[in-house]
This record gives sequence, structure tokens and C-alpha cells, in this order.
Amino acid sequence: MESTESTQRVSRRGFARSVGLLGVVAAAGAALAPDGVRIERQPAAEAAAPQSATHEHDMTTTTAPAAQSSGEMTFEEMDRMHEESIKAFPQKTAGLGGQRLAYTMEGDVKVFNLTCDNVQWEFQAGKFADAFAYNGVLPGPEIRVTEGDTVRINVTNNLPQSTSVHWHGLFVPNAMDGVPFITQPLIKPGETFTYEFPIREGNAGTHMYHSHNNSTEQVGRGLLGTFIIEPKDPASRPAYDVEYTMVLNDGPIGGFSINGKSFPATEPIKVKKGQKLLMRFANEGQMIHPMHLHGMPMKLIAEDGYLLEQPKIRDTILVDPGSRYEAIVDCTEVGAWAFHCHVLSHAEGPHGMFGMVTVLFVEE
Amino acid sequence: MESTESTQRVSRRGFARSVGLLGVVAAAGAALAPDGVRIERQPAAEAAAPQSATHEHDMTTTTAPAAQSSGEMTFEEMDRMHEESIKAFPQKTAGLGGQRLAYTMEGDVKVFNLTCDNVQWEFQAGKFADAFAYNGVLPGPEIRVTEGDTVRINVTNNLPQSTSVHWHGLFVPNAMDGVPFITQPLIKPGETFTYEFPIREGNAGTHMYHSHNNSTEQVGRGLLGTFIIEPKDPASRPAYDVEYTMVLNDGPIGGFSINGKSFPATEPIKVKKGQKLLMRFANEGQMIHPMHLHGMPMKLIAEDGYLLEQPKIRDTILVDPGSRYEAIVDCTEVGAWAFHCHVLSHAEGPHGMFGMVTVLFVEE
Amino acid sequence: MESTESTQRVSRRGFARSVGLLGVVAAAGAALAPDGVRIERQPAAEAAAPQSATHEHDMTTTTAPAAQSSGEMTFEEMDRMHEESIKAFPQKTAGLGGQRLAYTMEGDVKVFNLTCDNVQWEFQAGKFADAFAYNGVLPGPEIRVTEGDTVRINVTNNLPQSTSVHWHGLFVPNAMDGVPFITQPLIKPGETFTYEFPIREGNAGTHMYHSHNNSTEQVGRGLLGTFIIEPKDPASRPAYDVEYTMVLNDGPIGGFSINGKSFPATEPIKVKKGQKLLMRFANEGQMIHPMHLHGMPMKLIAEDGYLLEQPKIRDTILVDPGSRYEAIVDCTEVGAWAFHCHVLSHAEGPHGMFGMVTVLFVEE
Repeated sequence: MESTESTQRVSRRGFARSVGLLGVVAAAGAALAPDGVRIERQPAAEAAAPQSATHEHDMTTTTAPAAQSSGEMTFEEMDRMHEESIKAFPQKTAGLGGQRLAYTMEGDVKVFNLTCDNVQWEFQAGKFADAFAYNGVLPGPEIRVTEGDTVRINVTNNLPQSTSVHWHGLFVPNAMDGVPFITQPLIKPGETFTYEFPIREGNAGTHMYHSHNNSTEQVGRGLLGTFIIEPKDPASRPAYDVEYTMVLNDGPIGGFSINGKSFPATEPIKVKKGQKLLMRFANEGQMIHPMHLHGMPMKLIAEDGYLLEQPKIRDTILVDPGSRYEAIVDCTEVGAWAFHCHVLSHAEGPHGMFGMVTVLFVEE
Repeated sequence: MESTESTQRVSRRGFARSVGLLGVVAAAGAALAPDGVRIERQPAAEAAAPQSATHEHDMTTTTAPAAQSSGEMTFEEMDRMHEESIKAFPQKTAGLGGQRLAYTMEGDVKVFNLTCDNVQWEFQAGKFADAFAYNGVLPGPEIRVTEGDTVRINVTNNLPQSTSVHWHGLFVPNAMDGVPFITQPLIKPGETFTYEFPIREGNAGTHMYHSHNNSTEQVGRGLLGTFIIEPKDPASRPAYDVEYTMVLNDGPIGGFSINGKSFPATEPIKVKKGQKLLMRFANEGQMIHPMHLHGMPMKLIAEDGYLLEQPKIRDTILVDPGSRYEAIVDCTEVGAWAFHCHVLSHAEGPHGMFGMVTVLFVEE
Repeated sequence: MESTESTQRVSRRGFARSVGLLGVVAAAGAALAPDGVRIERQPAAEAAAPQSATHEHDMTTTTAPAAQSSGEMTFEEMDRMHEESIKAFPQKTAGLGGQRLAYTMEGDVKVFNLTCDNVQWEFQAGKFADAFAYNGVLPGPEIRVTEGDTVRINVTNNLPQSTSVHWHGLFVPNAMDGVPFITQPLIKPGETFTYEFPIREGNAGTHMYHSHNNSTEQVGRGLLGTFIIEPKDPASRPAYDVEYTMVLNDGPIGGFSINGKSFPATEPIKVKKGQKLLMRFANEGQMIHPMHLHGMPMKLIAEDGYLLEQPKIRDTILVDPGSRYEAIVDCTEVGAWAFHCHVLSHAEGPHGMFGMVTVLFVEE
């Protein structure tokens, strides 16, 4: 990925690396520091070097301990690793989830087929998760229908565990709700279960489907997908030019991910200047993910599929587990804009960016 | 609890269990998998069996490692445990919290008595928490008054620790606010402290009372309850037919709980079709709990007791610590609908559902 | 700090401490406990004493185990520590962050200077964090400008690590966005980088600036500050008399903090009765912080700087990482009102209050 740097002015001043400067307060900026604050600056090469044990636990020493949390790396080593992770974006991996699932018509019914499979899923180049996946992909394929449709979904369980499917956010008859022993028997290994229900009016928006048995493990490992319902009357929802769905997960296998991939293997989002981008967010994980877009705010228009009477503008949208949010980005600003979870530990570590990070490219 | 299964079609195909099938890619569904994704299916009996150590850490092997996270259980063992946890619902335990507290009148004053007790609280059948409880129950009894009332609350501390009570969400005179050393002395073991304050207009809604001393421990162990203020003019708030209050907690003792009980010992919610159900949510824990209702959405009408000018529709309501939410469910859909925290690890594990789960029964 | 207790009635009843009372159910309040709940009260001195190992894991014993989570402290020891932490408020420490940064004019440009320094930051009396700080303070100095301004910010890196600055919430040209390798090169130790951009109309509100390199560590250690944009037309935003900004952080160094300080070293907020107080909240940490104000509710007017079309009233405002919230408190209630994070473990432990706690003093 190319840097877009152009107008910035960088001045490198001679940077002393000698041990003799340790603990000396540099002149620049000192006037801005309030009384009583000790500013200790030290050459980088020193700072990154191992400290003696006596310094590590003596926070009141006037000789500042170094940034131990980055380990024993020099800043040059850290910079190289950070650069490598970004230059690798978008990293090629096998498998792409969330693509629209084809259906066949049987009479008036749209028929979809899902299998539940135990697959090795590449979430970063060369890194595989021992995943549970619908049709072999993470997230499972997107099911997209329209209010008024009737759907039939055949679910075949090829997993070593029993399962069931809950249609999260949909109005369905109770027997189709997917809760084992309450609304249906388990779908055991080798069995097929058929769900069938009408798509009711008033149910448009971004919804989900996922396992409802041993779900902490099964959803954590990937048994999840989006179920999008188009309105019968397109004019009933705000207009947009392009759309992008982000399914967030944070399972023990695969870690912090957007659409089953961890940066730099996440997918870039590419739009043209002036386009209206509909973002659909769905959180299938266990943690909050406040998604922050640089450069342009997002107009939040729907929660759990339901239109807000009063949309609101945010640059950070808190996506909590089980919830879905729809927001429109008016792509007025040209450039490469970072788009990431603002729980920073879900997006960056001492070795560079990873996890819940992608880039929105707005091109002329 | 009876299953409502009725119309689903289950087809059990002969499921091979021989070792020879290990690692063989089954035909069904393979066409749906994108290139480069290896789908590995294996018989369930094998999959649940222990794997060799060499497979466990070799994620790129073409022989899929089994679902180790469910331990060494076969799927039949898991299914049985999941079924047992659900069939036990609603499980009988001793003690029911959150019942309305009786009062006596002294002149124009409604007088309530609370004791703080160290009790053994049964949160699941046979499982006891070493709890701190108001009047011996978790949550403490509900205090319910009306705008314009004056209340007096005598709090007797029978705990081994000092305590105090904060009336969370209420307009009270500063000396009645319950913050030790700031607004009052501690209520030491054996002492009684009397709170007295008017219930001000504009303060209607769902509020709380809880310990404000050593509160991480004391509230975590159960020193909490709801304080509900009815409006002077009932027409000032949306109408409803029935109501149910959910107090959420996630303390180290008792774990993830709804009204002091962990599934299957939680209480079912029973309504008739067509009724409007007012749900009151209060989070007395340390974590977020996005509460998801199956089958029907909820109309969020109030936050911290204050009516929203623009109610919004959600199927998942993020209940954060210290906050209260009121939502109305239009119970149009007949059936047994799961109602649970969507941080899935708060609701289900490899041994079945537990914690923050209950069922809304909508009957004809 | 003085207690404001005045009207409460405390009655100390003789509190038996003899071992003989162990396990005896006291009469008071027993009528309120439902059947089947065993209320066990014991003298405090006993309760705080160590229990035998056989009791510790036997939750069904009729002899209640003591409050082990408070360790081996007597309640008198606990009370003394709780009192000490509160009486110490506001505790004097060196260093005060978040003060407004002075600028110089170069033509029509407001020029600010920031340095990035490794300092020992006193977050509680005698407790120092090995911090990374802008201009030596936590939070960094507040940058405050007006829509229509042009700003130039010289950032000099005196840290042992490379860094960059992201202007979180601002409309900036892509090259000024602060994402290393995507929009600019890293600012290496010893280098200065100059950011320059216009402040666009429509961008008023509370924003932030912080590191966007190795940010989990660098922001966690303190490289953060607020960037406040005043509207060109002051009448375009709600009026207020006084304002206070709370920057929340929860890094491994310095812990749970408000404006870089942990209670009792946090700063009190002092207002006069009748004043309208604008609270600005910004979360630079990794966790949610639902901020609860006692005594008076807050009118939430803006999120991420953008005015809500429908303000809403809350007594607890969920401040999530990366988000900013603005709320107006109508300071009608005289007194000393606790103001704290309602994730209780961020505010209180067995040794007293700490972390994310301060007090709003409303004076006549």
C-alpha cells in the first residue's frame, strides 16, 4: 500500500544517542510543563535497552525506566514491523465470507442450502483457525431476501457437535426460532433440518443468523452470517450508492476480526468521491467494538434494522454484541481513511496493526 | 418444559462413524465453498475423541483437529447436558427477590424497613452464594412509591462490614445520598440509619438502591434492589398491561444472574397474546449485558427513568452498569421465546445454558 | 473534606460479639424474608476472622462463611481505610493536565507546539506512572480553536519510540490524518513533524488528539488530549455558564483515571447553585465507563461533537472508547455529589475509593 504523504514537513534534528544525555531535560517544550513535573528525556537507543531490575519497580527514581511494555525491541525494529503489517495490506488469504448465497425457487419459495462445516480458515496469511463455518466460509454467506418473500433453508450439520440456527432479528413462527429443546430438537451430526418461514413486512434491515447451541463456542468459532431483508418499497429507507457489511467477531479462534479476517488480511472498502456508502455493522462477538472511521462522520440511520426517527451523526459507533447498526457515509473526502475498532488493543500491538482494522479508500 | 416442535422436517442420514472417513471431504455443500478453502468433515464420534498432541498445535494439517474447547465430551454427552439444563427450567430454588416491600404510614410518611443480612442464597438448585442481601433476598425487595410521597427507610446493618445506601437515580437532599464520609457516617455492624426524603415530581421511572460502601464487593454480593417511582399522573407515561423487572448482576458470587437466579432457576415471564409488557432493566453488575428478546422487538421508551422524546425499536437492548431502561413489548407472537444476554458466554457454555437466560411465554 | 451530615438519625444498638450468637437468626426483619431462605447473622468481629478451610468451600453449611473477599481485615480497619481515602480528597499531587495550550499567530495561522515526553507522572500522592505525555502532562494540554481557523501544530518526538498524531473527530486533509505508512511517515525519536489544516465549519464540539502508532501502549501511557472546536456562531450550541472536561483512561500505567489522576488526587468540580455546567466526556481507554452523577441528571446534548436533535436526560452516561459526549447539568441541588464510573471496580475496592471518582460541589 502506498503512502499518500505529500505536504508534510519533516525536520530531523541531530538526535544525540550518547549515554551522557540520560535524564537531561531538553529545552524544547519545557516552558509548557507545569511546575513539579519532571520531564526526563533520553536517547531512544538507551530507552529501548534493557533496564536494571532495580529501576523496574522504582517508579520514583529520577532516571526514567524505559518502555518495557514494548519489550526489548529498538524503535527501528518496531517501526519496521509496523510498516510491514501496513505494507502487506490488503494481504491475500484463501477464502472470502459473506458473499451472497444463491437460491432456487420451488413454487413461490426461495430455497437456500447451508452446511455446517469444520474448516481450517485462513484469517491472516499462513494463520489458520480451526473454525466452524456455514458453507465453509466466515462469515457464512449473506442471505438476502425481500419483505413478503417466503424462504426455506435446509441446514445440514457436518460438524462433530449438534447445532441449531437462530434467525436473529427476524419475526418467525416459534417452531422456526432455532432454540434447541424449546422450539426444536437439535440438529445432530449428519442430520438436515429445514426451516421455512415468511419474511414479514416491517422486518427490513440488517439481521443475523447463527448457532443457538453451545453458542459461545460455535458462534465464537464462526457459525454466523448476515440475513438482510430488503424493504418491499425501496423508497421507505434512505438511498445509498454502495454498501459494505462488517461482521465483527472476537472469538478465541481467529481473534479480533472483520468479516473473518484480521488486518492486514481484511478487505479494503473502495468508493468514489460523492458516493453514499451504506455501512452495515453486526457484532457476533462477546465484546464491545466502537468502530471509528477517520475523515468523515457516519449518519446512523437504523438500529437492529429499525429506522431511527432521528438519525444521528457519529464518528464512532458502539457496536455491541447481538446488535446491528446501519449508517450512511457521505464520501466527500478523498484519501485512504483508517477504519478500526477504537478499543485500541483490538487493533494494534507492539508489532503493528492487526485485527479490527481496514481502510476506506475514497477516490476521485 | 415441553418442546413446541411441530412442522419441521428432520432427515437423519446414515452417519458413518468409521475411522476411515477421517479427513475426507464430503460432497454435500462443497460446491458452495470458494476455492482454496479446505472443508474437512469427520464423523462426530471421532471428532469428539481426544486428538494426538501433534495435531493440536498444527493448524495447517489437512486432518482437522476436533472441537477441543468442548473437552473430551461426545456430542451425545453434550446434547444430554444441554437438554437437562433446559428441561429443568423453571428450576425450583429457595428464595425469591424483588417482591414489593410493604410499608406502614406514620402521618404522611411511608415507612419502609430494610435489613442488611449475610445469607446463603440459592441461585441454582443446590448452589449457594455467600450473599449480602436486603431483607434476605436477591435482589432486595422492590420499593415502589409515587411522585409526591414522602418516604422514611430504616436500614439496619446485620453484616460483618459497615455499609450505606445510595438511592440511585433519585433526587434526594444531599445528606440522604448515602456516600459515607461525604454525606453521612458509615452504618456500622449493628447500627440502624434512617433515610427520609420526599419523592420529587419529575423523578418517575425505574431506579435503584444499593450499597455505596465497599460497593464492588457489597453490590457484587447482592446489596441491591429496584426503587420504582410511579408518576403522579399515570397518563404521563405509556400504558401497559403487565410488567416485569430484570435486575442483572455478574458478581463473583452467584455469577451471571437475572433477579438473583441463574438459568434454569430464573423465572419465566408469562403473558397473554395481545398484552403490552413493560420490561424494566437495571444493571447492578460490572459488565455490559445486551439483552436480546427472540420473536418480537421491544420499544425503548425510557432511559434512567426519563422518557425518550423519540422511542426506538430494538431487539437487543444494551444494559450498561448503573443504567436503567424501560421498554414495551407488544406481545403479538404466541410461543416460548428465549430472552437472554447476547454476550453468549454469560448465557451458555459447553454444558448447556446457564446464567442470564429466561423465556417469555406468550399464550393464546 | 468535611462531611455534610446533618439531619440523619443514627441509633446504635448493642451489638453482641460473642461466639455464641453464630448462626442464630436475629428477629428483626425476619418476617420479611421468604420461606426457605436462611438468614444467618454473626457478630462482625467473628465474621471478619479467618474461617476454617472446611467452611470455605462448603456453601451449604448453616454457618455462614465470612466475607473472605475483604481479606482478613476487621470492619474497623476497612472503615478507617475508606475514611482515609475520602478525607484525603482533593489530594495534592504534582502536575495538572488539560490546561489550555497557548498559541502564536503566524499570519492567519494559529501555531501550537507539542512535545512528546517520557515523564514520571504522579497520579496519586507518591504514586508515579512511567508515562508518555504531550508537553509533560496527562492529559496533554487542551487545544481550543474556532470553526474557520487555520492551525499549525509542530509535534516534536522526544520519546524512545516513533509516534504520530491523529486528530480524532476532525475533518482534515488525508495527509494530515496521522496514520503512519498510510498518510505520513513515522515521527521518529528526535524528529519534528508539522501538521497544518483548516478547522472546517460543522466540526464544532469536543474532539481528541492522540498517538496513532503503537497506540495501545502510547495512548494507554498518556499520549492523548482534547481538541475542542468552538462554533463560529456561539448561539448555534446550547448555552452554559461553566464547563468541565473529563478525559477517562484505564491504561496499565496509572490505572483508572480522570484527567490523569486517580481518586483522591482527582480534581473537585465546583459550581454555584443555578449555574449550567457543560460536562465534556472523552474516553481514551479500552473499557466502557458509565459515568454516574449523584443528585442531578445530565441533559445529553452532543455525541462526538454533533448536536442531538433530541437531547435526552440521563443520570448515567455510557462513555465508550473513542467517543465523546457533551451534557449540561442544571446545578439546582446544593451539596457534595459523588461523580464516578459505575463499573464499581473502577471506583472502589476493599481499601476505599480510588480511580474514577470525583465530587461535584454545588454551593449556594
